[in-house]
Amino acid sequence: MNPSVIREILKVTEKPGIISFAGGLPSARTFPVEAFAAACETVLRTDGPAALQYASSEGLPALREWIAGQLPWDVSPDQVLITTGSQQGLDLVAKVLIDQDSTVLVETPTYLGALQAFTPMEPAIVGVQSDAEGIDVDDLAKKAPGARFLYVLPNFQNPTGRTMSEARRQALVDTARRIGLPIVEDNPYGDLWFDQPPPKPLTARNPEGGIYLGSFSKVLAPGLRLGYVVAPKAIMPKLLQAKQAADLHSPSFNQRMVAEVLKDGFLDRHVPTIRALYKHQCEVMLDALTHEMAGLDVQWNSPDGGMFLWARLPAGLNAIELLPNAVDKGLAFVPGAAFFASDPDPRALRLSFVTASEEQIRIGIKALADTIREAVKG
Amino acid sequence: MNPSVIREILKVTEKPGIISFAGGLPSARTFPVEAFAAACETVLRTDGPAALQYASSEGLPALREWIAGQLPWDVSPDQVLITTGSQQGLDLVAKVLIDQDSTVLVETPTYLGALQAFTPMEPAIVGVQSDAEGIDVDDLAKKAPGARFLYVLPNFQNPTGRTMSEARRQALVDTARRIGLPIVEDNPYGDLWFDQPPPKPLTARNPEGGIYLGSFSKVLAPGLRLGYVVAPKAIMPKLLQAKQAADLHSPSFNQRMVAEVLKDGFLDRHVPTIRALYKHQCEVMLDALTHEMAGLDVQWNSPDGGMFLWARLPAGLNAIELLPNAVDKGLAFVPGAAFFASDPDPRALRLSFVTASEEQIRIGIKALADTIREAVKG
Repeated sequence: MNPSVIREILKVTEKPGIISFAGGLPSARTFPVEAFAAACETVLRTDGPAALQYASSEGLPALREWIAGQLPWDVSPDQVLITTGSQQGLDLVAKVLIDQDSTVLVETPTYLGALQAFTPMEPAIVGVQSDAEGIDVDDLAKKAPGARFLYVLPNFQNPTGRTMSEARRQALVDTARRIGLPIVEDNPYGDLWFDQPPPKPLTARNPEGGIYLGSFSKVLAPGLRLGYVVAPKAIMPKLLQAKQAADLHSPSFNQRMVAEVLKDGFLDRHVPTIRALYKHQCEVMLDALTHEMAGLDVQWNSPDGGMFLWARLPAGLNAIELLPNAVDKGLAFVPGAAFFASDPDPRALRLSFVTASEEQIRIGIKALADTIREAVKG
Repeated sequence: MNPSVIREILKVTEKPGIISFAGGLPSARTFPVEAFAAACETVLRTDGPAALQYASSEGLPALREWIAGQLPWDVSPDQVLITTGSQQGLDLVAKVLIDQDSTVLVETPTYLGALQAFTPMEPAIVGVQSDAEGIDVDDLAKKAPGARFLYVLPNFQNPTGRTMSEARRQALVDTARRIGLPIVEDNPYGDLWFDQPPPKPLTARNPEGGIYLGSFSKVLAPGLRLGYVVAPKAIMPKLLQAKQAADLHSPSFNQRMVAEVLKDGFLDRHVPTIRALYKHQCEVMLDALTHEMAGLDVQWNSPDGGMFLWARLPAGLNAIELLPNAVDKGLAFVPGAAFFASDPDPRALRLSFVTASEEQIRIGIKALADTIREAVKG
């Protein structure tokens, strides 16, 4: 779907006081404001001039080392490029790997921001069949010849919340290796598991077979715009050249702030509090759905982590048409159609359970049920 | 020249303790560290969650208003897009205005980062003849048919330090308007004048005729990576879409920090101190050149502001070949060849007078003269 069309559709959700299940915003309750304040003070006092100066396009050595060190496979800091959010990682990958009319494969559905990042390079974006376990490997093998890469978000996917199973991961990596298809693996949500960590990343299974994207937006805060790309050494010079052309480097100050906050195992203490909060909020939404949707033919899944669940309206309803009615009742969601490379499912919608409060979730799901009920009757 | 070739050439300059006339780094002495520290504290205390959250792609309203308000022509905040440094402005302009094989016109020589930003869209980049007063308007008119835009940096240009004259500006704007050629005007250095402000911007003379790029890197600090694009309203939706795809938005925290620092006329007090420092450093370099280059057929210009001057080696010498010898003597510069879209001048070099200290400038220019003298003899 055209991004400006999506923008138009979502404009109706920009209403003061609305309960939003629409955005991909982490809960501001999880932002470590005090830790950042202390880090700002330390960085400016001890290293102010360097923190405010131009810096290398690769990123801050201390941060690249930290990232390489915590990944669950053997990564050299030389393979890590710091980006202005992981969205920029997608932009750089597009510039390096896509030419006009080249084919790019994506899940069905897939992350809207990836479609937006790839579009300026004018590829043909082809959706590969996918189910609750992830990408359909046979369909992939059929569509892969000539494709530049497969873009995939295996953990608590945006938009569906689904997680690729262990068996499917291994089958995907084996197939991609056999047919020589690079994988671009996006993992912004992997740390946000509820009960147990997801299976290990695709890139960990075949480090030379693709590019891995990570982010600090969901485990620290998105407002600093810091993410990273991990790539085989052979691809790094091209990524680095694209990075330099895009914005010279990511903010030196922000990189130092984050490196300072990450010291001494901060995430080991902090991330469990995010997991507990999101797990609880997800349970509240699932509970509200069970309660409020009784008697309505509405389906939804139950994610193992992340920020989103994926729902499906009764037959005959259309999420884009339903949205203004929902907004009239005080809540917003994103119509699922926005996330399909082609052949959108008009009944699908994405619900975020992390931005709204527990009370808002209950009120919002009731309002959604009322909206659906009226639409079914109408 | 290929960016990776330039990278290779400049690698020899990465030597500890070297006196650098090479980088485009502002003097760290000018960074308002205390003001930033106070702003960080205020922003996190009063507005922490919003400063750390995702934000709109357009940028912080307060910052857009400030920018619109200080530009010397009638600009609405709706026409201002905050970017991750003005380098990103070039990237967005490239995505919106360039298609594969479309022609883009640039000055001779021009800013290397612009060439790098345009290249991923695979245009034909054509240099327009230029002299000490700026672009040659007749040559422009000859080369303009079918071109997407002219990229120009009228104030204290990078790399030459030259400033486009009043007469040439008006002739350029009149010609561009007549032939319907959009102008992309880049103005990172305009505030860094020594004795008097430069003539008013091209965009002020014909606001619907082009896109204007500005930056906080040279008047506050580059390490926050904040710049802006000012565009006619009709172009904003496309720029905004490209911005969203590139990195969602520039860091919310940094935008708030800068908006906080800018309050109460901070720049009116701060920028004069930068001007005075850079003027003095420029005078020191010019004085050292006059003294050290005596008897050598070396030419250089005398800029009215900014960070760079442009020099030319004696006939028969080549700046790329000279660079390793200069580095051996402890100083670095950028060979001018890097800044030409085609037909580079092998004798040209760019000298920054703002990064090195006054003492280093004297030592470095002496070392440069010794290097040239040996090369002339050899």
